[in-house]
Amino acid sequence: MTETGARNGAETSVGVVTPRKIAIEQPLTLACGQTLPRHDLMIETYGTLNAAASNAVLICHALSGDHHAAGFHSDDERKPGWWDSAIGPGKPIDTRRFFVVCLNNLGGCRGSTGPTTINPETGRLWGPDFPIVTVRDWVQSQALLSDQLGIQRWAAIIGGSLGGMQVMQWAIDLPARVRHALVIAAAPRISAQNIAFNEIARQAIRSDPEFHDGHYVAHNVRPERGLKLARMLGHITYLSDSAMRERFGRLLRDGDGQFNFNYDVEFEVESYLRHQGNSFVDRFDANTYLLMTKALDYFDPAREYGDDLSAAFGKARAKFLVVAFSVDWRFSPARSREIVKSLVAAGRDVTYAVIDSRLGHDDFLMPIPQYHAVLRNYLNRAAEEVVA
Amino acid sequence: MTETGARNGAETSVGVVTPRKIAIEQPLTLACGQTLPRHDLMIETYGTLNAAASNAVLICHALSGDHHAAGFHSDDERKPGWWDSAIGPGKPIDTRRFFVVCLNNLGGCRGSTGPTTINPETGRLWGPDFPIVTVRDWVQSQALLSDQLGIQRWAAIIGGSLGGMQVMQWAIDLPARVRHALVIAAAPRISAQNIAFNEIARQAIRSDPEFHDGHYVAHNVRPERGLKLARMLGHITYLSDSAMRERFGRLLRDGDGQFNFNYDVEFEVESYLRHQGNSFVDRFDANTYLLMTKALDYFDPAREYGDDLSAAFGKARAKFLVVAFSVDWRFSPARSREIVKSLVAAGRDVTYAVIDSRLGHDDFLMPIPQYHAVLRNYLNRAAEEVVA
Repeated sequence: MTETGARNGAETSVGVVTPRKIAIEQPLTLACGQTLPRHDLMIETYGTLNAAASNAVLICHALSGDHHAAGFHSDDERKPGWWDSAIGPGKPIDTRRFFVVCLNNLGGCRGSTGPTTINPETGRLWGPDFPIVTVRDWVQSQALLSDQLGIQRWAAIIGGSLGGMQVMQWAIDLPARVRHALVIAAAPRISAQNIAFNEIARQAIRSDPEFHDGHYVAHNVRPERGLKLARMLGHITYLSDSAMRERFGRLLRDGDGQFNFNYDVEFEVESYLRHQGNSFVDRFDANTYLLMTKALDYFDPAREYGDDLSAAFGKARAKFLVVAFSVDWRFSPARSREIVKSLVAAGRDVTYAVIDSRLGHDDFLMPIPQYHAVLRNYLNRAAEEVVA
Repeated sequence: MTETGARNGAETSVGVVTPRKIAIEQPLTLACGQTLPRHDLMIETYGTLNAAASNAVLICHALSGDHHAAGFHSDDERKPGWWDSAIGPGKPIDTRRFFVVCLNNLGGCRGSTGPTTINPETGRLWGPDFPIVTVRDWVQSQALLSDQLGIQRWAAIIGGSLGGMQVMQWAIDLPARVRHALVIAAAPRISAQNIAFNEIARQAIRSDPEFHDGHYVAHNVRPERGLKLARMLGHITYLSDSAMRERFGRLLRDGDGQFNFNYDVEFEVESYLRHQGNSFVDRFDANTYLLMTKALDYFDPAREYGDDLSAAFGKARAKFLVVAFSVDWRFSPARSREIVKSLVAAGRDVTYAVIDSRLGHDDFLMPIPQYHAVLRNYLNRAAEEVVA
């Protein structure tokens, strides 16, 4: 995956950014029934909030994302934030016009309250005792964050994949607080096949002998084997069959064209998967991974509306941009069309774009010209509505 | 999956069958370079070989299959052989006309020489030291079996999935010995995505601490967690997304409609996968599973013909029936079309059928009326050529 802008075009980078920890002192009652008396959220912001606090854009992250969406944490950092290609001065999410906020969600593992932080009641890590959170819980938590930042109404809320689900939930639960909802590479709820992938990932982690029922830190170990398998499995769903064929084909790593007749890395695709798995275990927490997959499984806003998604959207007031990618098989264009049809049935204002793409689900992170043009044009119009 | 015939229609069952162990005393040099001085193959046969030995049909099994394709091993056995729906008197592979042979392939774990049998050189189990075998090795081994059974030329060789690959290899390597080649739900070689699934399955098994580099029997354990994950992963590819939606949807196992907020089995599809995983570890060997996935990865008959599959088929003399299933995404109809196009380019006689189906890859084991009609009609014509 290539990263654009940033180093080569310093004028389009937000530059060096410093994360902040925001203390949310209000209690939050979760879908599971448990109440968190307070919690912390790690955030980053890019651009300047205007006097009317009307130019704020919230970025919701996906399964393994965090608050570091753009820029660099230091001058010598090599890799920018996860959506640097789209966020910055002159980029589709233009920080010259918008005040952009990105957070690490509740339950995350990058500094926000979650399994890797201390449970004040016990003085020990939350670990597996941290409650399973839902997309709705995240929206409630993000709403408390909005209050604290003085943002009554977001000019736009934007997210891809699991992030797009948060955008939909915002539009349904807090309609007065979202002007534009940008739902990218998402689904109205995940399929049985998606749940199956998640379940195997969970089993891989939970059956790792070093998982210790989630108390691995206390045992000075980590369920690396399981987490690695989970990530490898995820990557199968992030690339399309055609993209895998194009990138790896049946190429052998060794140039001699002979088979090994052993179980060492042999095909290029094996090398890719092992690399993805290995690099993930160094930066992600297994308990958080489990939580995130459950939030995905549980997301189903139509459920309390008799499985009628258009009834769920009946309360929404936002304008919508829905974007899908042609070769995404994790959340295919067919799933985005379900969202669009329900929005139309609910009488909402909706723009729909299917981007000709090559990678698959991962395309939502890529600087595809057609995709960025759609985002840019939509957000330019949204910026014109902003009253300063 | 439903089983038909058998108990309810005793007239179409081959009844109680007894497996036999066939000793192959000729040496066999494998693709990896190693030579097996001798090997055993477990087989079952149904029907009667005619005097000219011209009515014999070979059934090649897929990843987890074995020699027990039809009938029952005892009167009180509940479940018939794995392809009982298609093999028997009056069934599409009609044992009143054909002498049907099915074997457990070399490297298998149901009695044929493989990881679970004794290496005569050491007096200990082969285990992980059993060489990785290829589809071509299987065909060579099956040819030695054919010699022993007195079958110079098979009236038909039939296989689904990995079994279909053996059929193609037979037609290419031993053209004079195959009259009809029936290639069902197969591919000319597996894709990078297929290899990716295999690699994750292998990693799951090999990273299980109870794998012990394959010497788990010596440690009185089995890598059950890894093998279970591998099987669950396989099952994702055996059912289509639509079939999973139809069978499981997002149904919860508990009728109360409430989420658990824990990691117990919650959705029906989770229950299905865990059951499939658990029942598999009781009947299959992890070292054999690894071998089988490698045979799949390595299969690529076009490779030694400059990646030109039609050149590979240039040597074939068999007539072909190629069957694909509409919703199979493991080896989709597009993959079968690659086979058909190459056969046509090679000037072969080929019949192609795409069956409207509902399950996915698993459909090749199902008694779908249109599918069975295709098999039946094709084999009836083949039976007419048989000189007794």
